[in-house]
Amino acid sequence: MSKNASRPFPVPRTKSRRASPAAAVPTVFVTPGEPAGIGPDLILALARRRLGAQLVVVADPEFLRQRARALRLRVDFQPYQADQPVRTLSNSLQFLAVPLAAPARAGKLDPRNAAYVLNCLRLAVRACQQGTAAAMVTGPVHKGVIADAGFRFSGHTEFLAELTGTAQPVMLLIAGGLRVALATTHLPLRSVADAITARSLRATLQVLAADLQRRFGIKRPRILVAGLNPHAGEQGHLGREDIDIIAPVVRRLRRSGLRVEGPLPADTLFTPPYLSRADAVLAMYHDQGLPVLKHQGFGRAVNVTLGLPIVRTSVDHGTALDLAGTGKADPGSLALAIETAVQMAGRRRG
Amino acid sequence: MSKNASRPFPVPRTKSRRASPAAAVPTVFVTPGEPAGIGPDLILALARRRLGAQLVVVADPEFLRQRARALRLRVDFQPYQADQPVRTLSNSLQFLAVPLAAPARAGKLDPRNAAYVLNCLRLAVRACQQGTAAAMVTGPVHKGVIADAGFRFSGHTEFLAELTGTAQPVMLLIAGGLRVALATTHLPLRSVADAITARSLRATLQVLAADLQRRFGIKRPRILVAGLNPHAGEQGHLGREDIDIIAPVVRRLRRSGLRVEGPLPADTLFTPPYLSRADAVLAMYHDQGLPVLKHQGFGRAVNVTLGLPIVRTSVDHGTALDLAGTGKADPGSLALAIETAVQMAGRRRG
Repeated sequence: MSKNASRPFPVPRTKSRRASPAAAVPTVFVTPGEPAGIGPDLILALARRRLGAQLVVVADPEFLRQRARALRLRVDFQPYQADQPVRTLSNSLQFLAVPLAAPARAGKLDPRNAAYVLNCLRLAVRACQQGTAAAMVTGPVHKGVIADAGFRFSGHTEFLAELTGTAQPVMLLIAGGLRVALATTHLPLRSVADAITARSLRATLQVLAADLQRRFGIKRPRILVAGLNPHAGEQGHLGREDIDIIAPVVRRLRRSGLRVEGPLPADTLFTPPYLSRADAVLAMYHDQGLPVLKHQGFGRAVNVTLGLPIVRTSVDHGTALDLAGTGKADPGSLALAIETAVQMAGRRRG
Repeated sequence: MSKNASRPFPVPRTKSRRASPAAAVPTVFVTPGEPAGIGPDLILALARRRLGAQLVVVADPEFLRQRARALRLRVDFQPYQADQPVRTLSNSLQFLAVPLAAPARAGKLDPRNAAYVLNCLRLAVRACQQGTAAAMVTGPVHKGVIADAGFRFSGHTEFLAELTGTAQPVMLLIAGGLRVALATTHLPLRSVADAITARSLRATLQVLAADLQRRFGIKRPRILVAGLNPHAGEQGHLGREDIDIIAPVVRRLRRSGLRVEGPLPADTLFTPPYLSRADAVLAMYHDQGLPVLKHQGFGRAVNVTLGLPIVRTSVDHGTALDLAGTGKADPGSLALAIETAVQMAGRRRG
């Protein structure tokens, strides 16, 4: 990433705002996600950290107290009231109460609580839409148990897009100075080639460029676009999509003023000579972009949804059911997700 | 990679062999590849380096002299004679003469020299098969100009497999402590899923395990196998191939004693907790494995063909026509390819 671009993880500007903390520190709603997983543990572990945000946990308060006791964490819980200034004490968390449908036990999935998980997300979205929250940060959910409960749910990104009426959400991952967006997300590999259309690619690049500007303060973001095929198709010898679909979209967007370059071979563009002149990479599919990102930013990755009318970030990991309730889960990704949300929310209002 | 496994780039054991250098230092045949590209420049740049090998360049000697003059390199050329002990002087290169069909100019492809490029490869293969060469190392060729000349040539790997009657060649890349083999190589992305069959996957894993043992001296190599689909298919929600094809092959090979693990999500397995317990990774396709490898090992990657009856390594880059004749091309990858070949040849005889 270039030196003059804003870094993915700058220290939040809490210092200059201390004069009027209640007004200046943004309120961030956090959904812990699957109650049987590590999400609740992570947010409890962060209760004593200063993250530049007023955190409001959207969850069942009785359940949070139980999990805190199990983890031997002393946390003071206070109900959130939208019309009152938020007070943040050390070791305290505000909550917006949502009742569980069934008791939640660490490590034990229960489809009866799937509706609870989705309700928490709905309330956080509404708070962002109404302006009571500056951003929302999500813990990991378990897609399988939500599906078992009979809900159609293919992921946070799609669910939040539907709730906010967003036509083209874009998944962006950030880690260790690298930003990687995806042109397609969770698809079987054999479905990827047909899912890359000129229309979706153009919309994705426009959202990416606009949100790098709006949310990350990069005036004229430079984006590298990966080819779909190995060696970006090698002049058509290894597939036609790079010539027929990707190249024309890139040419058109360049003419319209966007700083987009590609299609480039994926095993070339993730090297220093290319990354040094880029603010973000657009990979065509999940396993083309994310192995590099997670290799270099292991344990320090944040998932961001672009294109939404609200700010949403997320941890980059799963529910880790076997670690829930043990106190061994690392809250690093959640802390970074909150810091990134604070930064993005600040850009938004600035 | 684990600590007890042999490192990919150990210093060649030239020291202990100095007592009888002519016998102990292996003879390595080098094919410079496309004469209009940087291959000839790289081998000329290495004439003064001690690489633990007796190098024999398979090329047109008059052309080599011309290019050396253009690069202002003083290199002494001597004809190679198989029955005479090789003398290695500083700044000298032995050659096995193959005449160009047409004058070769830096940067200008000429289909008339395509047959020359292939002849150089044939002679190097024969020398390895006859035992006069311990290994062969290849510079970059240009597939397009070979195709324009009317030859069916899809890459070094396939060509060498055909010449040596090898049913299952395996492409392995090595860089910065990471070894990544590919289950499929240069295919359009939409053809990948159908190319992953139980039969080819089993054969690839058997070759990989056998050659990590035979060529790299790893007694019981541990191999991580990537899933084909994102999240290794997420229990079938994102494609069935991981369950139906990859998992059964891995189970069977484990029962037969191989230390194989998978299918694992590609964005999980390229992280320290997994790599620390592996000697190699098998990626299902080109852009799943190589972006990570080249990101972490930029400019220090070597391409190795496993499964052949001979030792063959290669640079990991292309012909870079625009750099040919300028002296700006970096011989780092070729030097590592030679060192890796020396190491592999030593293992083979040991």
